[in-house]
Amino acid sequence: MIKANDPKLESWIEISEGSDFPIQNIPFGVVELRDGKLRCATRIGNYIIDLYSLAGYGYLDGLGIDDLRVFKKPYLNDFIANGRPAWRAVRDRISYLFEKNNSHIRDNIEEKSNILKHILDVKVKMPVKVGDYTDFYSSIEHATNVGRMFRDPDNALLPNWKHIPVGYHGRSSSIVVSGTDIHRPKGQTKSNDAKVPSFGPSKLFDFELEMAFITGKETQLGEHIKVEEAEDHIFGMVLFNDLSARDIQKWEYVPLGPFLGKNFGSVISPWIVTLDALEPFRIKGPKQKPEVLPYLQYEGNKSFDINLEVYLQPKNGEKNLICQSNHKYLYWNMSQQLAHQSVNGCNIKVGDMYGSGTISGPTPNSYGSMLELSWKGTKPIKLSDGSERKFALDNDTMIMKAYAEKDGIKIGFGECITKVLPATE
Amino acid sequence: MIKANDPKLESWIEISEGSDFPIQNIPFGVVELRDGKLRCATRIGNYIIDLYSLAGYGYLDGLGIDDLRVFKKPYLNDFIANGRPAWRAVRDRISYLFEKNNSHIRDNIEEKSNILKHILDVKVKMPVKVGDYTDFYSSIEHATNVGRMFRDPDNALLPNWKHIPVGYHGRSSSIVVSGTDIHRPKGQTKSNDAKVPSFGPSKLFDFELEMAFITGKETQLGEHIKVEEAEDHIFGMVLFNDLSARDIQKWEYVPLGPFLGKNFGSVISPWIVTLDALEPFRIKGPKQKPEVLPYLQYEGNKSFDINLEVYLQPKNGEKNLICQSNHKYLYWNMSQQLAHQSVNGCNIKVGDMYGSGTISGPTPNSYGSMLELSWKGTKPIKLSDGSERKFALDNDTMIMKAYAEKDGIKIGFGECITKVLPATE
Repeated sequence: MIKANDPKLESWIEISEGSDFPIQNIPFGVVELRDGKLRCATRIGNYIIDLYSLAGYGYLDGLGIDDLRVFKKPYLNDFIANGRPAWRAVRDRISYLFEKNNSHIRDNIEEKSNILKHILDVKVKMPVKVGDYTDFYSSIEHATNVGRMFRDPDNALLPNWKHIPVGYHGRSSSIVVSGTDIHRPKGQTKSNDAKVPSFGPSKLFDFELEMAFITGKETQLGEHIKVEEAEDHIFGMVLFNDLSARDIQKWEYVPLGPFLGKNFGSVISPWIVTLDALEPFRIKGPKQKPEVLPYLQYEGNKSFDINLEVYLQPKNGEKNLICQSNHKYLYWNMSQQLAHQSVNGCNIKVGDMYGSGTISGPTPNSYGSMLELSWKGTKPIKLSDGSERKFALDNDTMIMKAYAEKDGIKIGFGECITKVLPATE
Repeated sequence: MIKANDPKLESWIEISEGSDFPIQNIPFGVVELRDGKLRCATRIGNYIIDLYSLAGYGYLDGLGIDDLRVFKKPYLNDFIANGRPAWRAVRDRISYLFEKNNSHIRDNIEEKSNILKHILDVKVKMPVKVGDYTDFYSSIEHATNVGRMFRDPDNALLPNWKHIPVGYHGRSSSIVVSGTDIHRPKGQTKSNDAKVPSFGPSKLFDFELEMAFITGKETQLGEHIKVEEAEDHIFGMVLFNDLSARDIQKWEYVPLGPFLGKNFGSVISPWIVTLDALEPFRIKGPKQKPEVLPYLQYEGNKSFDINLEVYLQPKNGEKNLICQSNHKYLYWNMSQQLAHQSVNGCNIKVGDMYGSGTISGPTPNSYGSMLELSWKGTKPIKLSDGSERKFALDNDTMIMKAYAEKDGIKIGFGECITKVLPATE
């Protein structure tokens, strides 16, 4: 077992019951301090640990990071580029320093006040500069639901779906951090009975419950990441809300795929949880039948048991839990996705982001989009204030949560929040 | 008329007959000097002008560029971010300094030897760091040809095609500069009569003759670039070879679009030609019928008369001209593409790249891909050595050229060259 994952570890930082951020988590992110400076950071309970400040006192010496100034960069990319041994070493060191009985920082008021900041005293920022972003389509329940609704109910999955972790390139410029509100997009739509398209705000604004992983190791053009090596290339994971304008998407997507129906905004949770922290939550993946091609075959537990929740909160209203799903439902795992992405020699960069695709489960309350939850608008979602939703209304707030739980330890991802703003003038 | 475009201008730098780079061109790029240093540069004839060195002597003072160190960055992005007035001012200044009768540098041996380098003494590099890359599908002849081959010959264009400048997101990490050779990609393919897919090197390796534009002005999420403002956001253009593995693409692309069939490599020409240099070559665009939605309507001449050529050169063989097309054939112009890309509020960054899609003309010798030239392999292309091609073979070299010509002035793009390497082991 990785020592930093020991369920018995406790921190001298006070952690409230049910926190997403026990000492066993140690996720990575970027925060803006009160003076406007940006710092790479981790989080324990409600405190962030300024890694540049920590490094300044020599606490991150000897971990194989050549230049500790990476921790004052505006993104984690340069830190991540140091590689998995360095991420692990930093996580282990933090685990050691903030463990209950370690007095180095705990009993040094000056160091403590420089290194630790309350979460309310900082602003969380986009943790990585995303180079390329791919969105997969790896939930069999989601692909089946969409196929049933829009294609052939008896033949919902397309012929390639069980052979290929289907994916497409998305827009990286519009990936933003939790708390960024997004305007309802405008665009072309065409209803089935109209002869010509019309222009205006999307009427079918939806979320897609996804998780994404971030790559941490570069490859060159022509190189292939084998499925068994893929996890060495994965830095960690975040929640991912792949906002979708269904009506824009419907009119534009044949034959080259989703475009303006997606690229007006995608929202991620700010703390990247490492695969090391998720190690205790590995589980066996679903049986893949027919057998996949050799470059996609894997051994061992490559799936993760991570609970997922989506809440919808109307303006001035209360949060309504409208979806409960789990990362384990994904048919294709992250290692297969990355092996597929690179099998043609496509080069991978540090900071690339790979979305899972909507993660729907087998039951109607586990569907990961309003499209599926309301079954194309035919079964409106009932909210606690008596109102109903087929799709999101202006000023609705979407909140996603993710956490893994076992042996009394909860490793959480925090929240991924975005509010739907009205279309711009 | 822009003064730098005056056909009567001559330079004191010797320029050979038919050069792509007269003093009226002044494109921008990045070169590596003999000592390994990277420099932003322009090119006149066979000489590059080191812009950092030029700035060091004060020759770029007073042009509104705050920090002249932008010219020693590894990419043009920071220079470009200074905006169109700065690009124009630099181009005008270079035009002035290198005009035949200007003796400042011409007669100063030390300055001249530091500023000017022969093209053979430098290595041309990727000119911009590409954030996002979109590939459009804007040639009506190409879309029609593809529709005739793979869908309905009598109804070749899809219903959205004349309403939307259809596009999709591509992979930016694998966009490389001319001279980079690309391995034949491996991947899944499935022939029509096979029951299951198989894995191996692509058998249908193709080029796509495209041009791409690079954006030079940032917008924020929620902002829209109006069609009449779009050119202020465009820094310039390059040749773009959108390499395609037709068999991989065919099996993967439904429903989310092209992915591994494209992202193993795309190749651009190294010198970015500004819209200012292309000003004399504006022409009226094709009539768009049915009328497009208001946000896509434009006035004036937004198309450009740029000749395009593709040569195929077998190993140790001679160059065969296999395609002659023109940028003017595009149905959708760049201003419409950028207005469409941002109409939903998608944010644009400096250094984004926007491919035109394959530029096919109306006649069979103007088709911009081997798929079309060989009509799906049914009409092999005959080469001068007696061999034939349906698609590219290993060690074939693809060479693209582009130039505009008028009043005795030729504004060229140089070449976009790539060789097909065998698949990796």
